[in-house]
Amino acid sequence: AIIFAVVRTHVSVNPAKLKSHRQRWNVRPSEMSKKTLNPIRAIVDGMKLTPNPEKPMIALSIGDPTVFGNLPTDDTVLQAVKEAIDSHKYNGYAPSVGYQKSREAVANFYSCPEAPLEGKDVILTSGCSQAIELAISVLCNPGDNILVPRPGFSLYKTLAVSMGIQVKFYNLLPEKSWEIDLQHLESLIDDKTACLIVNNPSNPCGSVFTKEHQHKILAVASRNCIPILADEIYGDMVFPGCDFQPLAPLSSDVPILSCGGLAKRWLVPGWRMGWILIHDCNYIFGTGIREGLVKLSQRILGPCTVVQGALESILNDTPPEFYQGTISFLKSNSEICFSELSTVPGLNPVMPSGAMYIMVGIEMEHFPDFQNDVEFTERLVTEQSVFCLPATAFEYPNFFRIVVTVPEEMMIEACIRIREFCARHYRPRSQDSHELDQ
Amino acid sequence: AIIFAVVRTHVSVNPAKLKSHRQRWNVRPSEMSKKTLNPIRAIVDGMKLTPNPEKPMIALSIGDPTVFGNLPTDDTVLQAVKEAIDSHKYNGYAPSVGYQKSREAVANFYSCPEAPLEGKDVILTSGCSQAIELAISVLCNPGDNILVPRPGFSLYKTLAVSMGIQVKFYNLLPEKSWEIDLQHLESLIDDKTACLIVNNPSNPCGSVFTKEHQHKILAVASRNCIPILADEIYGDMVFPGCDFQPLAPLSSDVPILSCGGLAKRWLVPGWRMGWILIHDCNYIFGTGIREGLVKLSQRILGPCTVVQGALESILNDTPPEFYQGTISFLKSNSEICFSELSTVPGLNPVMPSGAMYIMVGIEMEHFPDFQNDVEFTERLVTEQSVFCLPATAFEYPNFFRIVVTVPEEMMIEACIRIREFCARHYRPRSQDSHELDQ
Repeated sequence: AIIFAVVRTHVSVNPAKLKSHRQRWNVRPSEMSKKTLNPIRAIVDGMKLTPNPEKPMIALSIGDPTVFGNLPTDDTVLQAVKEAIDSHKYNGYAPSVGYQKSREAVANFYSCPEAPLEGKDVILTSGCSQAIELAISVLCNPGDNILVPRPGFSLYKTLAVSMGIQVKFYNLLPEKSWEIDLQHLESLIDDKTACLIVNNPSNPCGSVFTKEHQHKILAVASRNCIPILADEIYGDMVFPGCDFQPLAPLSSDVPILSCGGLAKRWLVPGWRMGWILIHDCNYIFGTGIREGLVKLSQRILGPCTVVQGALESILNDTPPEFYQGTISFLKSNSEICFSELSTVPGLNPVMPSGAMYIMVGIEMEHFPDFQNDVEFTERLVTEQSVFCLPATAFEYPNFFRIVVTVPEEMMIEACIRIREFCARHYRPRSQDSHELDQ
Repeated sequence: AIIFAVVRTHVSVNPAKLKSHRQRWNVRPSEMSKKTLNPIRAIVDGMKLTPNPEKPMIALSIGDPTVFGNLPTDDTVLQAVKEAIDSHKYNGYAPSVGYQKSREAVANFYSCPEAPLEGKDVILTSGCSQAIELAISVLCNPGDNILVPRPGFSLYKTLAVSMGIQVKFYNLLPEKSWEIDLQHLESLIDDKTACLIVNNPSNPCGSVFTKEHQHKILAVASRNCIPILADEIYGDMVFPGCDFQPLAPLSSDVPILSCGGLAKRWLVPGWRMGWILIHDCNYIFGTGIREGLVKLSQRILGPCTVVQGALESILNDTPPEFYQGTISFLKSNSEICFSELSTVPGLNPVMPSGAMYIMVGIEMEHFPDFQNDVEFTERLVTEQSVFCLPATAFEYPNFFRIVVTVPEEMMIEACIRIREFCARHYRPRSQDSHELDQ
């Protein structure tokens, strides 16, 4: 009030300045930036990760298949980018949804008679992360909710919460190879449900849904008129004897935005080449969703053009042996890890069928030294220099996730150390012995 | 009501399903996607662009210096990316803000004693567009407003409006080489003003601010405690005899997010390599804005890693002759265009000092055949097969923008055709002659 009175005495002051003059600096990060929470970072940053100096660190935590150098991409892939550079054709702006030729290459690669794709059905994005961001952005408004798997990849929640979209977690069932608890899923649906996210093959579970199970998922979506975001970034990364079935060809009505990219199958996650495949056999998305995706793509103008220029050759010329080599390595490492940890008292690994992860249940009642999976994995670093992500990071306490892309000898050594760690901390399941520990 | 009654008779139905069952498909694009409007697309898509079949098309509309092949990037730049690929070191995930080494390379390149930069002050982004998106996202909440130049690059408004941020346009003054109308600028500020966007050198004006003018801009920001987003993507692209002065070294208090990238100066806009330089000499952003930017960067995980891997070499090894070559070409073409159009009755080009554009005023009262700049440029295509963007796309009617990156002979031919077009449609400024035309 005093300030106001003082200002009033200066009658020559421009009145516009009265309202405008901010008295002091007060620059605060936006609500959206504060709501953009990465649970993995939050949990990992809160852990005391001091490895045992006598044992070299083994990180089984990073979902990046390239870190140990044992899983290089194929030379065809590298050569394709170098040729794109040498052509001098891919330095300018591409359309924000990608070059038509590159979109057609993706469409041809994934098209099948039951779910045909053309170039217009493909939106190229800066990694699968942006594909997921655009798909959620176009389908959901603030106040809507989305259905997200638990355990599941944390990005869905990170993005949704930052946009004011509520997240409802549906359960996956470890005892049924991480199939969806369909009753639970359906019970969560209400008239604000804008999208069902289905992640298959699954991060962090490494599970692969059967065709039958996917038919049932589609039936739930169809009954309730909910479109699906299918995160299929690990598509085709399934072990021999198991089939990857993309979701879209099974749908007779449910519209699907299938998100994918080069990251995992071609082992170049840093290149940030992703895509959305628009499946809309019953014309439910219509032009609205397509136009919305185009508009959203214009915000940051799509992925790097030299990778776009290489896309056709990457998809068409990578030899089948490359994919097979990756898969047999992942299967072999998974089997080593599973068979080693299955016989560790107190641990319950769930054998995966694809992707590059194993989830391992911890019988916490047998490990009274630790409150939860975060403490368990923290101490595993302190004592054994082995780091696995606590599955609390995937909204699934009392499990931890192992990345199986590390070299075989590292995987074996890690399992030995995990066994040693568990043996040291395991307590038989008697209330007495538990109390003695306190 | 009937449906409800029917359902009620089935008393065994799970009540949870009652609320949940959506009766029919109704998938609509989100409000945000609908609010993501690209005015250039909206205007261009609404134009009848049918070139004269007897004259080959000359597009002076596209802000992409690579389209005609006359401005290739330097071999050093291409070689650097190929070496990054061959190193096999840049295929995995980088930190979401970029490799530390690449951030340091950018910091070193732009650091100066008055505004020192370290790696931690640099956020690498997917093109300058994402840099601008992140900067607006971290500084502004819905309901805030930002100050944006008029004429100005349309992306600021596109992004802001989609986020529920109000846009207030401040005037640039063509008669003062497009300097900011500082009084007008300051009159727009209120307590909801979260950010001032300064674009220098300017798209679409090609203007370059003097040091003195930038001091005055900073004084307005300082008086009103408004942080600045400095869009300096055309930094250093200024003609000989003129100096590019980055804004940050002149600031003694105002915190600045300076956005830039490889797109224009290195002539590779498709590569999507941009950055934010965080200047905060007075610790006004503090840790909050920095952490907010890191969080936002985790949404889509930064730019392509092979380009990141090449960044150090691109910045340090590109020969000075390359930059000079580009600049002298742009200056020469600008002079040709300016001197040609200055003598066309009814047109008022404004000579640029940098970037790659010329704005040309249309004395609409002398062109009664056309309602506005959109009709003027539309007919210029129909009759002369020359396409310039109407400056309505930059919120500035009765001007059009010419891109001066086209080959010289094309520039000359375009000017001849524009002269012919104007001569045909020009009417002297008498009310009588105007009425005769009707």
